[in-house]
Amino acid sequence: MTTQLIGLDWGSTHLRAYRFGERGLVEEVRTLSCGIRELPAGGFAEAFMQAVREWPQVPVLACGMVGSRNGWLEVPYLDTPTRTDRLAAALKPFTAPDGRTVHLVPGLRDPGRPDVMRGEETQVAGVLAQFPAASHRGQLLLPGTHSKWVTVRDGAITGFATVMTGELYGLLSRHSILGASLPPAVDDDAAFRRGAATARDSGAAGVLSRVFSARTLMLDGTLAPASVADYLSGLLIGDELRVALAAGWIDAREPLLMVGDAALCSRYLKAAEAYGLQLTRAPDATTARGLWLIAVEAGLVTTRATA
Amino acid sequence: MTTQLIGLDWGSTHLRAYRFGERGLVEEVRTLSCGIRELPAGGFAEAFMQAVREWPQVPVLACGMVGSRNGWLEVPYLDTPTRTDRLAAALKPFTAPDGRTVHLVPGLRDPGRPDVMRGEETQVAGVLAQFPAASHRGQLLLPGTHSKWVTVRDGAITGFATVMTGELYGLLSRHSILGASLPPAVDDDAAFRRGAATARDSGAAGVLSRVFSARTLMLDGTLAPASVADYLSGLLIGDELRVALAAGWIDAREPLLMVGDAALCSRYLKAAEAYGLQLTRAPDATTARGLWLIAVEAGLVTTRATA
Repeated sequence: MTTQLIGLDWGSTHLRAYRFGERGLVEEVRTLSCGIRELPAGGFAEAFMQAVREWPQVPVLACGMVGSRNGWLEVPYLDTPTRTDRLAAALKPFTAPDGRTVHLVPGLRDPGRPDVMRGEETQVAGVLAQFPAASHRGQLLLPGTHSKWVTVRDGAITGFATVMTGELYGLLSRHSILGASLPPAVDDDAAFRRGAATARDSGAAGVLSRVFSARTLMLDGTLAPASVADYLSGLLIGDELRVALAAGWIDAREPLLMVGDAALCSRYLKAAEAYGLQLTRAPDATTARGLWLIAVEAGLVTTRATA
Repeated sequence: MTTQLIGLDWGSTHLRAYRFGERGLVEEVRTLSCGIRELPAGGFAEAFMQAVREWPQVPVLACGMVGSRNGWLEVPYLDTPTRTDRLAAALKPFTAPDGRTVHLVPGLRDPGRPDVMRGEETQVAGVLAQFPAASHRGQLLLPGTHSKWVTVRDGAITGFATVMTGELYGLLSRHSILGASLPPAVDDDAAFRRGAATARDSGAAGVLSRVFSARTLMLDGTLAPASVADYLSGLLIGDELRVALAAGWIDAREPLLMVGDAALCSRYLKAAEAYGLQLTRAPDATTARGLWLIAVEAGLVTTRATA
């Protein structure tokens, strides 16, 4: 098989490089722990050369924080609403030290809030190709450090919002009075569900009216110190769903798709049960799919290949 | 004048020692930066000796985290509802190495939530003596690292709730993507008010649906990097008021008193304007007042002195 394209999913913490064959088949994946946050000044070229070493001289398409202000080259955000064709038309090309042309996918900006994303737009492109119904009219949840809630209408991302659930969890569990100096965490499904139910029951006041309970329940002896982490996780993920409902990001008449890490998605599915919410998990690996689709749309690959 | 009592307000970060003369007049105050979080193991006795050095051998009354599990000696929480007389009846005495008797004020526990406080119960006792109307029926706000919202009925604390506004502000401004690697903050009143209004307008979704705007507005160029801190402060303090309203902790027909650090209180007063809320600031230094009142009630001081 002939290599057609190299795709890069280059975020804050990781660089994932895909070698695509005919019809967008992923023939090889390399994962490097050289996200843009870890790189030394001028480290982009070197990390890039390492990621693509010995691969053929084909076009490169890259998405994620690599196109941010602190990235290799800044690509301006594209305002919503946006479809894949607009992303493809706005790629920013430049020449890497090895002579390859690297095309950067722009991030998106929702001018209404405002809010921004980089990388998720490509993931969403990959999801929508697989779920025509959601592509027509639906909601996507991409949980993570900065969870994204994305609204889709007629194949276009029309708006989105960020909730910093993962980052907040990290801060509270590592640095706050709630989580610091606790024994190592153990998995505690009941504690997680208790947290999610507490967030749900907080109503319009929301989880910040209840988050101190992670400490008081422990002092009270009804929450084991090693279970505080799962309780806190349930509180924050449960509150993210409460927020999404209160903010009108979820419409029960539309499909709600979720894409992300398996372990994290299973937490969201559990929290969704507390609300009687229907979440459908889409297969991960949608970023590779999205990169290929954008490359096809941009004419970077000569293809009988339709994705 | 004769020294009647030594009072200690001994919290996580500071130890404040009061020497009381006749009628509870504070004749001397010493502030030491040896809060219980900073002390080495076994450091309590030494810090105590330093705080009271050369002062007469009179009874000592201490409140705050000194009576917590990580304190000098643990005093069980007293469940609400509680009046000053119940606090006084539940003091825990022990003998310090210098022969003085130290009486520890118990913290309070609201069994309904559950929630806990240590030190604020003494501050509240001091406030209520000065505001008979609020003592009958009112709300007290003690803003800080862990803000307390306290409900008072007929002189008793009947319930309370904690919002970790100050701690959350510290975490987000120092350790999160929102606040890390920003230039030194400048005072920006407009940014603070913009944050408070954004929190108010977030409605039932609450500030976690909007907090990422501290970054996106900066990327957008409509919020100066040096003003992010004040915007974030406005978001979080504004949201604390939103939470208090949504949770029913504020009743517009009752007085709402606030006691605390002057600079912090002025931030809450500004945020309250965004809601058209009436906050009345009570004089600080109420902990010393509360300590004296509890000592009188407990008979630790022989006194014609009524406070």
